[in-house]
Amino acid sequence: MMTTTGIGLVARPQSQISKKLLQRAVTTIRSIGFRVLIERETLEAYPDVSGDDVFSLESNPPSRIVVIGGDGTLLRVGLRLGARSGDVVLMAVRAGKRGFLMDVGPEELEPALRDFVEGRLQVISHSRLRSSLRGEQLPCVLNDVVVFTREGTLVRLDVYQGSERVMGVDGDGIIVSTTTGSTAYSLNAGGPIIDPKLDVMILTPLNPVQLFLRSVVLSSNEEINLRLRPDSGPALLILDGQLKYLVEAGDTISIGQCKEPLRVARRYWWSGYYERLYARLLSYW
Amino acid sequence: MMTTTGIGLVARPQSQISKKLLQRAVTTIRSIGFRVLIERETLEAYPDVSGDDVFSLESNPPSRIVVIGGDGTLLRVGLRLGARSGDVVLMAVRAGKRGFLMDVGPEELEPALRDFVEGRLQVISHSRLRSSLRGEQLPCVLNDVVVFTREGTLVRLDVYQGSERVMGVDGDGIIVSTTTGSTAYSLNAGGPIIDPKLDVMILTPLNPVQLFLRSVVLSSNEEINLRLRPDSGPALLILDGQLKYLVEAGDTISIGQCKEPLRVARRYWWSGYYERLYARLLSYW
Amino acid sequence: MMTTTGIGLVARPQSQISKKLLQRAVTTIRSIGFRVLIERETLEAYPDVSGDDVFSLESNPPSRIVVIGGDGTLLRVGLRLGARSGDVVLMAVRAGKRGFLMDVGPEELEPALRDFVEGRLQVISHSRLRSSLRGEQLPCVLNDVVVFTREGTLVRLDVYQGSERVMGVDGDGIIVSTTTGSTAYSLNAGGPIIDPKLDVMILTPLNPVQLFLRSVVLSSNEEINLRLRPDSGPALLILDGQLKYLVEAGDTISIGQCKEPLRVARRYWWSGYYERLYARLLSYW
Amino acid sequence: MMTTTGIGLVARPQSQISKKLLQRAVTTIRSIGFRVLIERETLEAYPDVSGDDVFSLESNPPSRIVVIGGDGTLLRVGLRLGARSGDVVLMAVRAGKRGFLMDVGPEELEPALRDFVEGRLQVISHSRLRSSLRGEQLPCVLNDVVVFTREGTLVRLDVYQGSERVMGVDGDGIIVSTTTGSTAYSLNAGGPIIDPKLDVMILTPLNPVQLFLRSVVLSSNEEINLRLRPDSGPALLILDGQLKYLVEAGDTISIGQCKEPLRVARRYWWSGYYERLYARLLSYW
Repeated sequence: MMTTTGIGLVARPQSQISKKLLQRAVTTIRSIGFRVLIERETLEAYPDVSGDDVFSLESNPPSRIVVIGGDGTLLRVGLRLGARSGDVVLMAVRAGKRGFLMDVGPEELEPALRDFVEGRLQVISHSRLRSSLRGEQLPCVLNDVVVFTREGTLVRLDVYQGSERVMGVDGDGIIVSTTTGSTAYSLNAGGPIIDPKLDVMILTPLNPVQLFLRSVVLSSNEEINLRLRPDSGPALLILDGQLKYLVEAGDTISIGQCKEPLRVARRYWWSGYYERLYARLLSYW
Repeated sequence: MMTTTGIGLVARPQSQISKKLLQRAVTTIRSIGFRVLIERETLEAYPDVSGDDVFSLESNPPSRIVVIGGDGTLLRVGLRLGARSGDVVLMAVRAGKRGFLMDVGPEELEPALRDFVEGRLQVISHSRLRSSLRGEQLPCVLNDVVVFTREGTLVRLDVYQGSERVMGVDGDGIIVSTTTGSTAYSLNAGGPIIDPKLDVMILTPLNPVQLFLRSVVLSSNEEINLRLRPDSGPALLILDGQLKYLVEAGDTISIGQCKEPLRVARRYWWSGYYERLYARLLSYW
Repeated sequence: MMTTTGIGLVARPQSQISKKLLQRAVTTIRSIGFRVLIERETLEAYPDVSGDDVFSLESNPPSRIVVIGGDGTLLRVGLRLGARSGDVVLMAVRAGKRGFLMDVGPEELEPALRDFVEGRLQVISHSRLRSSLRGEQLPCVLNDVVVFTREGTLVRLDVYQGSERVMGVDGDGIIVSTTTGSTAYSLNAGGPIIDPKLDVMILTPLNPVQLFLRSVVLSSNEEINLRLRPDSGPALLILDGQLKYLVEAGDTISIGQCKEPLRVARRYWWSGYYERLYARLLSYW
Repeated sequence: MMTTTGIGLVARPQSQISKKLLQRAVTTIRSIGFRVLIERETLEAYPDVSGDDVFSLESNPPSRIVVIGGDGTLLRVGLRLGARSGDVVLMAVRAGKRGFLMDVGPEELEPALRDFVEGRLQVISHSRLRSSLRGEQLPCVLNDVVVFTREGTLVRLDVYQGSERVMGVDGDGIIVSTTTGSTAYSLNAGGPIIDPKLDVMILTPLNPVQLFLRSVVLSSNEEINLRLRPDSGPALLILDGQLKYLVEAGDTISIGQCKEPLRVARRYWWSGYYERLYARLLSYW
């Protein structure tokens, strides 16, 4: 099949930096002798970038895809790949200053592309979480599943492992995070940093009335249920900060480990992890 | 004028406990020889409660009003009184288990009413904050002015005292709280407890990316401006958890001390303050 | 050998409650037909309690030991057993109100003893941490290894995984905790709660100047080194809050997983874990 | 008296940077036509620095003193001046990278000295706290009075305003901080930042078992008592991180506002306060 012999390209729209990186990637992939496959929405955003073919993340993704942008770009690609992510390896190219999940810097795009195509990068499997709402299975998340107040009204919910209540929250909601997500929103809300070699699930309550609550770290293969109490205000279920679903008093959200991890070919991951993390934390001001 | 010779009554709607307390209050006020004035919305909620006259919080509030309900009931009364609150003294009767601002318990309604009517209670002046948005002056708040993300998108804002930047937040928003509000939402978000005898303004960032940020306590007579940066997501301006206004990138919210405090005749305030506070904090689970 | 046919007893000294439980245990063990072995220091504390023989935790512990007291009593027994803990199963009886690690309540001593002796309790293996200082191997801890300022002078240290720096702390020191210890001192210092089914190591900095630092959760089979910088003040290395060693600028403390877990026969552990935890947290005031 | 016509100099010992600044200060003061007075311990540390006379902080401090070093140097000068601080204005020169209380940078020593001598700097009055232990009045502190565990044993204490209990702590102790001290140890322990124009007292518990405890901000003219409970472990009373006193179960420490503030002539204080603060917070790593 055609798509397996080319390299896919996805880039954040409306970004001059991303566009330039996209063009450089096209040139390099061609020069190595591979076909250039452009993702449909990327092509719409940058119609003058000329590839050899077009693909869709949802229906016919190639087995190797280069993602250019920030963390949000990678998160969206993961959500859109859905069950097909099992057949795909990504490479994550940072366009701009930040982007903790994007390990390939703009200046090293060309050598990284060669390493990627020739299989010399280490492939990291990022565990993900799946969730379901009212019987509907939702896309797996790389970072987090968040139940978040709509417009500031109090959310009341309980977290259950089987019949055991792990936590009861009256507040702005709760974050259920992966190891990868532990350095994202969960960290801002007071959650711990999880070593990237450890595979867990983290519960972090959001501004709870119960001042004694702390983050709880669970095994990644736990199955948990978040139940909005009958007297809870309405909330949003937010997947990786991107997809939003309305949830209401009485609803239950089931969360567990996703069968398919997200696989990313990386130049840098375990090595220098904490130095990169603190550099990012200190870059804000 | 008629309204000055009677005692006003406001009660939380849709609450059997509030209704019974309202009826007991009507009986007691009559028995002391005062006229019973029922607030318009309260009368709509409980049409079979018979007072001597009706009043409106916005247009002709009596000088003494008994508020029956929870903290939210008192907050709403304060917002609705607006500039007229200067002529009014409230008494706060707790209907239900919690309600930290409601110091009169259900069991002491009658003696408290007599003390109130005969001027034997201590009147506490609760400082409030005023705010304005796009030139429009908004009602003064007893607890807090909150800038809060709409639907979880990142809010980016700066807080200024004159030309000095006090804090820059990338997160879910910020709480600007009074001393009274320091034990409400601000406390859940990591803010300090302020002694009720101290009059200040507290800034508490909400889940900021800037992990080094802490609450900042300012003098209550500071004037501050919250400016949403051009790249901020949309947000809600929420007054005392009750009134909501849409704010957008580029907007500035000005906040300062309200000229009129909210005056509440109290059985209990300074005395036993911390014991009551911790009892409330430990009542959640 | 004699000691294997009897049940050992250890009790907290100077406690009337512990003494009574000890006497009840003696009676019950005899009535079931087992020999009663009293630990040497326990016998010194309660010389009128008459057992059939005496044993030492360090040199000839029996294979089944009942520990009566609070969490500190169990921690001390674990430290004193040292390498011999591999041959021993404990039962933990709570004397007094608190004692989260002591699952058998005073009122259920007799049935629990029968269950223990007849092997009907579930044996939980609590992972421990070993540490070494200047080449000397120290006893394994059930809860935590803490580096703590002596007299409040600033401790400066770095935490390494191999050649990678995980954290640099200028403050009162650091806690390295087990899963079991996550609900003890680490929790008071801002660390997360770890599910008892998950086996990890938690680093929690103590009041660091670096405000952006958070707890870091590592796999329990990591090897880490804590290195006091040349300009650090002197510190104490504290094992399970019980044993103390002086450490100084330039010292390195190595920490890793202990080969032998501490095995405790339990009536209650996984089940109802969070309810028991929160009940304990709310019992303080 | 001789000392009133000269400018005093105090410098941190054992620091080449401090010594050079000291020598530059001697030259400049002479060139402006003032006598150079060297503090006794400073002269012992740097015997080849030649002044016109020697003074003692405790017995005959001149009315204007230049302090060269870090925050600790200024804190020590404040403690040693004791009741005499009322007659003295200090200038604070930073030797080295950090030193938040030291507003004059090394590069601006000479112009700042002229401004100081000629009265062109703004004199900031920093409120201080006095404390007493067992009837003995202790030196006033600029930053904080800390009750701190000796060797990690649990400290149990209660904080009282008159007969009202404000807080009960089981933990490593408590910090009672001034506004100035709010950006020092109290901040590392989770306390709020206090605007420098606001005069308060802050209570911050240290790693308490009571997870619901938060910092409490009181009026600076409150009188509080810290009472170690009968079952408390021994503790140290630490003044500004410098002076240490042993305290034991049953002891009471009384804390209130110091009559004499510490007056410091400043180039920079209100202006740019928060920018300087965050720059310092981000300088650690």
